[in-house]
Amino acid sequence: MAFLNENYLKLQAGYLFPEIARRVRDFCEANPAAADKLIRCGIGDVTEPLPAAAIAGMRRAVDELGKRETFRGYGPEQGYEFLRSAIAQHDYRDHGIAISDDEIFVSDGSKCDCGYILDVLGHQNRIAITDPVYPVYVDTNVMAGHTGPVGSDGRYEGITYLPCTAATKFVPEPPGEAVDLVYLCFPNNPTGAVASREQLTRWVEYARAHDAFLLFDAAYEAYITEPGIPHSIYEIEGARECAIEFRSFSKTGGFTGVRCGFTVMPKSLLARTSDGRQLPLHALWNRRWSTKSNSVSYPVQRGAEALYTEEGRAQVAGLIKHYLGNAAILREAATDAGLGVFGGINAPYIWVKTPDGVSSWEMFDRMLRELNVVITPGSGFGAQGEGYIRISAFNSRSNAEEVATRLERLR
Amino acid sequence: MAFLNENYLKLQAGYLFPEIARRVRDFCEANPAAADKLIRCGIGDVTEPLPAAAIAGMRRAVDELGKRETFRGYGPEQGYEFLRSAIAQHDYRDHGIAISDDEIFVSDGSKCDCGYILDVLGHQNRIAITDPVYPVYVDTNVMAGHTGPVGSDGRYEGITYLPCTAATKFVPEPPGEAVDLVYLCFPNNPTGAVASREQLTRWVEYARAHDAFLLFDAAYEAYITEPGIPHSIYEIEGARECAIEFRSFSKTGGFTGVRCGFTVMPKSLLARTSDGRQLPLHALWNRRWSTKSNSVSYPVQRGAEALYTEEGRAQVAGLIKHYLGNAAILREAATDAGLGVFGGINAPYIWVKTPDGVSSWEMFDRMLRELNVVITPGSGFGAQGEGYIRISAFNSRSNAEEVATRLERLR
Repeated sequence: MAFLNENYLKLQAGYLFPEIARRVRDFCEANPAAADKLIRCGIGDVTEPLPAAAIAGMRRAVDELGKRETFRGYGPEQGYEFLRSAIAQHDYRDHGIAISDDEIFVSDGSKCDCGYILDVLGHQNRIAITDPVYPVYVDTNVMAGHTGPVGSDGRYEGITYLPCTAATKFVPEPPGEAVDLVYLCFPNNPTGAVASREQLTRWVEYARAHDAFLLFDAAYEAYITEPGIPHSIYEIEGARECAIEFRSFSKTGGFTGVRCGFTVMPKSLLARTSDGRQLPLHALWNRRWSTKSNSVSYPVQRGAEALYTEEGRAQVAGLIKHYLGNAAILREAATDAGLGVFGGINAPYIWVKTPDGVSSWEMFDRMLRELNVVITPGSGFGAQGEGYIRISAFNSRSNAEEVATRLERLR
Repeated sequence: MAFLNENYLKLQAGYLFPEIARRVRDFCEANPAAADKLIRCGIGDVTEPLPAAAIAGMRRAVDELGKRETFRGYGPEQGYEFLRSAIAQHDYRDHGIAISDDEIFVSDGSKCDCGYILDVLGHQNRIAITDPVYPVYVDTNVMAGHTGPVGSDGRYEGITYLPCTAATKFVPEPPGEAVDLVYLCFPNNPTGAVASREQLTRWVEYARAHDAFLLFDAAYEAYITEPGIPHSIYEIEGARECAIEFRSFSKTGGFTGVRCGFTVMPKSLLARTSDGRQLPLHALWNRRWSTKSNSVSYPVQRGAEALYTEEGRAQVAGLIKHYLGNAAILREAATDAGLGVFGGINAPYIWVKTPDGVSSWEMFDRMLRELNVVITPGSGFGAQGEGYIRISAFNSRSNAEEVATRLERLR
């Protein structure tokens, strides 16, 4: 008698983005005229074409696969050396961070890696996540059976929630209790907040003191504009002993549909067995990839490699400048509309307080109906997100300007 | 104190193919002259370039991503409708099998799907696998904690092994005991055996009688040449209520490095909860993809779609004819060398009995040293594989002919 994984039944009904898609679809079917004017600032999906360097790299790779003498079949399960090396060199060693090529594991995206990482970790770990939070961290832990049931406040039993509020500029402090795995994301999705060197140092000290791991999602590091803000957790001394970092090409090279990211797994990271031994997690992670994957499509890896050429880096910088330009426009417009505005300086997301006690989903529906603008309700990211909305800066300049104009109607 | 997943520590040392790669590397470093003559018939990796249709489809898609008006970001997590529909139509409905588009879930390969599927299944399920077997089925269950420790015979406690021997033409019969999940792979990797309609019917009847699931790996179905052999488990009445099918473009379109496959998850498949409810597994599988993935690279999906055009199908047929031609040459040569030969008629693998009680790894080393040919030791696929080797037909014609010539030296 085949059994299903009952942990799935604990999950709350709709994963956030499918639920948004459903509401938008229903609205558009009922209001075809408004549908034409709809502008999407909801899901954080890029809008601008891929950098020319990536296109050229992918084209060359596709052509190679069409000729016998340059055809390639299975690649190394952890990613091609050419890409692992480009990543380790440009993203880490060029910045004075000691990361070796074989500590880089290429994947089909950060979202995927956030789930995969649980494969190699024990079920007895106590999990801490921020609130609000990128829902994938929570839901993958629910699916893996690391939580109890959900409460009426949307929180799952067995998870330690770290509130992120305006009072602390949306950066959590380490908890008083001991936890084993802490998910941190800076620049933050959804709030756009960044953590300072001092704040991250306190987290690394906490992790070292409790033999905990930091699961550090740096998918948006390229959006940091202010000097002194760490781009990588490994800029903090001691992080090689306690942190795993996730990065993505989705929001740099515009790879949301191309699918590529990577995990940094330092060989110096030791995890415990229940009988007290300490073993490098790197060996398990390597085994996970060997057994469960054949890595990422060859043309995709060549496309990602091309982002590290001089031309590619200039083009990526141009894309980020574009989206951050949108963020500045949206920030100003929301501020002018009298709303409380956070983020959008070192991140492509604006985190906006709803006016007058309006709930997040009410504000979502109002903006959809009255402004024909799709945003993301903050409550979809956790209880502390209630009363906020997230506006994404991933858009064309003209759309960002049009949204800014429409926001005036909220005055 | 962060804990690792201790189930990984139960895994036997080397995953088969990395171990082969290590031995080949060591041999080549010690014998550079022989290295030049080396022919690889080990890992089942294709050698011929991608079909022109797939190249054209991927190029067009890459070009689309380079222009704003045709750019695409995140796609549907389950795969694009254009691909799900092409698969369901051509691989199923055109053959009279009722599979709807939304029962197709596109993935980055069958190897991956074989691991992913455990995400949605309960830990209390009793697992049955054939011996010999594709190691991924076993290792992913070990990692998930579904087994006890490994014994000196290489078998894990808690798994029901179904012996596949020459006496039964390498097709297992259903066991006397009740199990919940049965991994079946036909045409078989590694033995090249196929299951008849009658044999598969007995498996479906067994599954229905015990409310068990068949996890049916049909990655090699396109190699079936003999009439009357089922290509899909869904050709058997009642399979929609008890079977999940995995397929891949790796061995049809040569996608081993491009990465694409799919799972068929019928909506009629019901799984149990511990309190006796029966729920469609489709909903959980759909949720798994929504939460843990953003599907497969857009150019890859367009490449896979192109395999279903008239041109693409003719080119795939040409590739399969080529590899099966190699298989015929290798079969004949191994037979002429006095070896016991199985498979290679409806499958790209030849399963060969070693002579005179020679062990699989001894035969591997001998063929590497004396013939400079890399094969796969049968014992790497399970205890019943001891005394066999697998020769892959994935090669150029000239290499297959050269291997045939070298096999004469074994006479």
